Amino acid sequence: SNAGVDQIAKVRKLDIIETAGERCLCILSAGNLATTQSLVTEFKQGFGSGNPVDDLALAATMFEAARAVGEKLRHLLSRDGEHVRPYGDPSASFLLGGQIQGERHRLFQIYSAGNFIEATPRNQSLQIGETKYGKPILDRALTFDTPAGEAAKLALISFDATIRSNLSVAPPVDMLIYRANALTADTPHKFNDGDPYWSALRRGYSDGLMQVVRGLPDLDT
Amino acid sequence: SNAGVDQIAKVRKLDIIETAGERCLCILSAGNLATTQSLVTEFKQGFGSGNPVDDLALAATMFEAARAVGEKLRHLLSRDGEHVRPYGDPSASFLLGGQIQGERHRLFQIYSAGNFIEATPRNQSLQIGETKYGKPILDRALTFDTPAGEAAKLALISFDATIRSNLSVAPPVDMLIYRANALTADTPHKFNDGDPYWSALRRGYSDGLMQVVRGLPDLDT
Repeated sequence: SNAGVDQIAKVRKLDIIETAGERCLCILSAGNLATTQSLVTEFKQGFGSGNPVDDLALAATMFEAARAVGEKLRHLLSRDGEHVRPYGDPSASFLLGGQIQGERHRLFQIYSAGNFIEATPRNQSLQIGETKYGKPILDRALTFDTPAGEAAKLALISFDATIRSNLSVAPPVDMLIYRANALTADTPHKFNDGDPYWSALRRGYSDGLMQVVRGLPDLDT
Repeated sequence: SNAGVDQIAKVRKLDIIETAGERCLCILSAGNLATTQSLVTEFKQGFGSGNPVDDLALAATMFEAARAVGEKLRHLLSRDGEHVRPYGDPSASFLLGGQIQGERHRLFQIYSAGNFIEATPRNQSLQIGETKYGKPILDRALTFDTPAGEAAKLALISFDATIRSNLSVAPPVDMLIYRANALTADTPHKFNDGDPYWSALRRGYSDGLMQVVRGLPDLDT
């Protein structure tokens, strides 16, 4: 996370709220750190409280949970927005993925406006934050049927492109793979700079890409 | 160029203003089309007029020419800006490259604010418009010493990534290669969808990239 190049902090952007066997909700955050931490903290503290605006245990579906995230975001922005704007952008966006017993696993993107969309077979990858540098590899290679291990590989290549092009994006990268119908989250993978798999992947991709480019004919000028 | 997905036009974003053997100025435009066309048209009409705000023939250096572009941009935005803003963003940005007799060839980027920077050996590539999707390949492969034909290849791969990820970016791509001390522009290359070199390059890059990705081990989940 950064608020200018002289105010950089390593912050976890991945949070899990679950009752194992009944519901597993994973929230990924981007944007203003005070906004995202407020939102996640209120949902963590409010889980099981019975208070409808804070309690994701009350959501009967992932759709309802996404609406609760959007509504809390609107509430936070209407409370803090005007105070924050003179100093920076108060807005935030989220990915909410997971599963609630009684329906399939689902993935939503909540916009700064508090509205949201769901991933579908035709629109299978959702991104928040610094999205553009890492999008081309996903556009080229990812399909709805890509197996999880290959999708994870593509996500890490996508992050590599973003890290190379935007100084404020840096490891560690947290990655959660949710297994359909598990109703509990695996321990997230955490990729640091020295991670053997990611290091080999980055080097292999970079070397392979340079070899492809060198092998293609230059323009005849 | 697009002003919404239902208002798309093919527009030339590359203009050349020159007195062969004495000066060659190339202007690349991005942003509001009315703003960029006004700016380019006034400079084309004013070339040789002796009017200091319109006449790039009076610029003794590329630095002075860049300053003239920035000043005209500020003038246009102060004239049109408030009328345009209710309907959209009036701003624009430019690349100005070329050479004026008596100094070396130079390349400048003029920001929407009218200020500008120059390309240097440490900052050798400048982009305007939809820049992010196509930046990773330049960050990985382009150096100050890259020969022109290879740089052209990389630029076309960069545009391919942008075209794939942003629907409003489409061929033709105009490309000018300026030869140091020529003091006149070669005929620009124009790459349409069916261009044999570009088609082979896009296919070769895509196939090669997919082969590299497939050859790398998936994450063990």
